[in-house]
Amino acid sequence: MSESIKDRVAVMGVGCTKFGELWEKDAEDLLVDAVYAAYEDAGVTQDDIEAAWVGIMYPFTGMAGVSLADPLKLYGKPNTRVENFCASGMDAFRNACFSIAAGVYDIVLVCGVEKILDQGSRGLPDLGSSQPVMGDISAPAMFALAATRCFSEYGWNKETLAHVPVKNHHNGAKHPKAHFRKEITKDDVLNAPMIAAPLGRYDCCAVSDGAAALVLSRPDLAKKFNHKDDYVLVKANALAVHTGAPMYKPSFNYIGFPATQDAAKSAYEQAGISNPRKEISFAEVHDCFSITEILNCEDLQFCRKAEGGDFVASGATAVDGELPVNPSGGLKCFGHPIGATGCRMLYEVTKQLQGRADGYQVKNRELGLAHNLGGPGSVCSVTILGQH
Amino acid sequence: MSESIKDRVAVMGVGCTKFGELWEKDAEDLLVDAVYAAYEDAGVTQDDIEAAWVGIMYPFTGMAGVSLADPLKLYGKPNTRVENFCASGMDAFRNACFSIAAGVYDIVLVCGVEKILDQGSRGLPDLGSSQPVMGDISAPAMFALAATRCFSEYGWNKETLAHVPVKNHHNGAKHPKAHFRKEITKDDVLNAPMIAAPLGRYDCCAVSDGAAALVLSRPDLAKKFNHKDDYVLVKANALAVHTGAPMYKPSFNYIGFPATQDAAKSAYEQAGISNPRKEISFAEVHDCFSITEILNCEDLQFCRKAEGGDFVASGATAVDGELPVNPSGGLKCFGHPIGATGCRMLYEVTKQLQGRADGYQVKNRELGLAHNLGGPGSVCSVTILGQH
Repeated sequence: MSESIKDRVAVMGVGCTKFGELWEKDAEDLLVDAVYAAYEDAGVTQDDIEAAWVGIMYPFTGMAGVSLADPLKLYGKPNTRVENFCASGMDAFRNACFSIAAGVYDIVLVCGVEKILDQGSRGLPDLGSSQPVMGDISAPAMFALAATRCFSEYGWNKETLAHVPVKNHHNGAKHPKAHFRKEITKDDVLNAPMIAAPLGRYDCCAVSDGAAALVLSRPDLAKKFNHKDDYVLVKANALAVHTGAPMYKPSFNYIGFPATQDAAKSAYEQAGISNPRKEISFAEVHDCFSITEILNCEDLQFCRKAEGGDFVASGATAVDGELPVNPSGGLKCFGHPIGATGCRMLYEVTKQLQGRADGYQVKNRELGLAHNLGGPGSVCSVTILGQH
Repeated sequence: MSESIKDRVAVMGVGCTKFGELWEKDAEDLLVDAVYAAYEDAGVTQDDIEAAWVGIMYPFTGMAGVSLADPLKLYGKPNTRVENFCASGMDAFRNACFSIAAGVYDIVLVCGVEKILDQGSRGLPDLGSSQPVMGDISAPAMFALAATRCFSEYGWNKETLAHVPVKNHHNGAKHPKAHFRKEITKDDVLNAPMIAAPLGRYDCCAVSDGAAALVLSRPDLAKKFNHKDDYVLVKANALAVHTGAPMYKPSFNYIGFPATQDAAKSAYEQAGISNPRKEISFAEVHDCFSITEILNCEDLQFCRKAEGGDFVASGATAVDGELPVNPSGGLKCFGHPIGATGCRMLYEVTKQLQGRADGYQVKNRELGLAHNLGGPGSVCSVTILGQH
C-alpha cells in the first residue's frame, strides 16, 4: 500500500536569481547566486547539505552532477542531474522529496538552472536528438495549433488570449526579479508582431537565463531553522508523461494536455483535494504561451473544459481574483530558462505562502500549486505546497 | 537522524539485452527488449509499474521521460531521466530506491540504455557542453596518465595491467550476452595496437550498444512474486561527485579516484561493512580501462593502496579467486553503452546472488558490489546487493 508524500517534506528556504538576459553570468554563476540565497534563507551552511539535485535540460548548460558540484565545491557528496524537458527542475525537486521522505537524508538541496543566451552566433547546437519534438517544428508553431483549434471549437479569438499576457505583465511589473517589468495593454498584444499565427509576440514567453534553489528537510527539523514558524509543507508531488510527439498523433485533440490532466488528478488525490477551484488558493501555471495557461487552467480543474476563455476574461485569475494564476508574472515576464522554471515556481509559491511576496502578494494563501508542462504537452509536473 | 536504505528495497526481477554492435536495434528497441525481460523475470505486467526511471547520458539516445514512455507506451505515469555521466544508470536506480523506501510507490521500473553506434558518418554530435571533461582530451588519454603515473610510482608495467583484460576476457567468453566472447593471452594484450600509451587496444573497453532493466519493490511485496524465495535486497546505495575536471587540477595525484573512495566509504557505512575484502563476496567494477579496475580495487578497499598490481596478479580477482571482480567480463567484454552499464552491473550482481550465472557463477554469493565511475573520476556510484 503506497503512501502519499503529504506533510512529510518541508521547504526550509528558497533562493532565486533575477531572470533575464544575463550576459555577465554563466550557469555556474547563476547556480551559486541562487543556492547561496537559499542557504541564507534557510539558515543553513553548505556543510549541512547531504545530497543535491539539479534540473538542467540542455547539455551546454551542464551535464551530470559535476555541473552542480563544481560551482559549489560540493565535493564528495551525491549530486544528481535530472532532465525532463521543461519539468526538469520540478522533477529534480520530486526526486529530492523522495530521499527526505525515505529518511535517507536530513537536509538536501534542489536547484534548477538554464543558460540559454550567449551560446554563440550559430544558435543552439544540434544535440543529435532523434525525438521529433526537438526537431522539425518550433514551440510557437506547436502551441499555435492548439490556439487555432480552440478558436474553431469554442469561438475564442486573439482577444480571449490577450487577457493572459495583460494580467501577467501587470503582475510581473511588480516583481523585482522578473525579466520584463512593464504593464501592457490589450492593444499592445493585438498589435504585436506575429510569431506563429495566431500567437503574437506577447502570447509567447521569452528565452531568458536564470536559476532558483530550495533547501528541503523533514518538518521536525525545519522547526529548528530560520523558518521555524513559517516553513512550508509539500502536500503533493506528481509527474505524468505522455508521448514526446502528441501533436503528430491523429488522436491528439489540441484542446488540452493529458499530461496535465493526469498529473493534476494524482496531485489532488495525494493532497486530498476534491474541489481544486475552491481549495487551491493560488497557482503558478506554465504559461509558455497564452493559450497554454488557459488550457492548463481547464486541465487543472480550475474551471470546466471549454470555459477557460471566460474564466480568464472574468478576472478570476488576477492577483485579487478568486484563484490568482501566475501572481509572479509567470513565464511571460520571467522567460523560461528551462531547468530553472520549475524551481522558480516553487520559490514563488513558497514566498506567497509565507506572505513574503511584497507588491504581488495574494490574500488567500493556504495552498499553492505549481505546474510545469514540458515538450509539446509531453511531460507535466504538479506540486502542491501548503502552510504547516 | 538519517536512516540507511539497507534492506528496505528489493530487486524483484532483471533483464538485459545482448551488448554489442546492434545495428538493427535503436534505443527504443533495446529498452523494450530489456524491460520486458525484466517484467517476465519479476512476474509483473506493465500495469503493475507505478513509476519509472531511465539512465541515459547522450541526448541523441533520448531526452526526458518520453524516451522511456514512448517505446513502452508507459503513458500517464511518472518517467524520469537521470543523467550522471557513466553512473547514469546506477543513479537512476538510486533515485528509484528512494521512492520505494519512502513508500510512495509499490513497484517501479529502472532501466539504462545507450545507443552510441549508428550515429552517422560524422561521429558524435557536439553537445555544446562547456565542461572540459567533454572537450579537449579523449578518455583513453586521460586514463593513460593514471597508468603512466602508477608505472613511475609503483614500478607497474604493461604486464601488470594485462592481468585485467586476460581475466575479463576469460570470464566474458562464457557470458552469452557479452559483446566480445573470446579468450585472449597476455601476449595478445602486449602486442595489441597502442591507443594512448601505455594503454593498448585490450586495455580499453569498447563502444557498444545495450540496455538493462530492473523491477524494484519492497521486501514484503517481493515475497508475492516470481522470486519470492530468492529476491535480492539493496544493502547500500552511494553516490559521490567530485570535480568534472580532476585531471586538470595540480592536486590530483593520478593514483586513485576520490569519488570511488568517498562512495565506497558511504556504501560500507550504510551496509555495516567494516572489512570489505572479507565481507564482499564478488564485485562488478568499472573497468573502462585496465588501470581503472586496478585503482578502483584499491579505492574500494579490496586491497591496500599501491598493492593493486600484486592483487590482480595473484589471481584473487578471478571467478574462483578470493574476491572475484567482473565475473561477467566487465566493460572489457560488454563495452560501455554509458547509461546502460550501471543497470547491467546490477543485473549481473542479482543473477550471481541468485546462483543464475550459468558458466561464470561465483561460489561465495552473499554480498555483491556494483561500481560505476564516470567522467575522468568525477562521479562514482557504489551499490551493494545481498541475499535476503
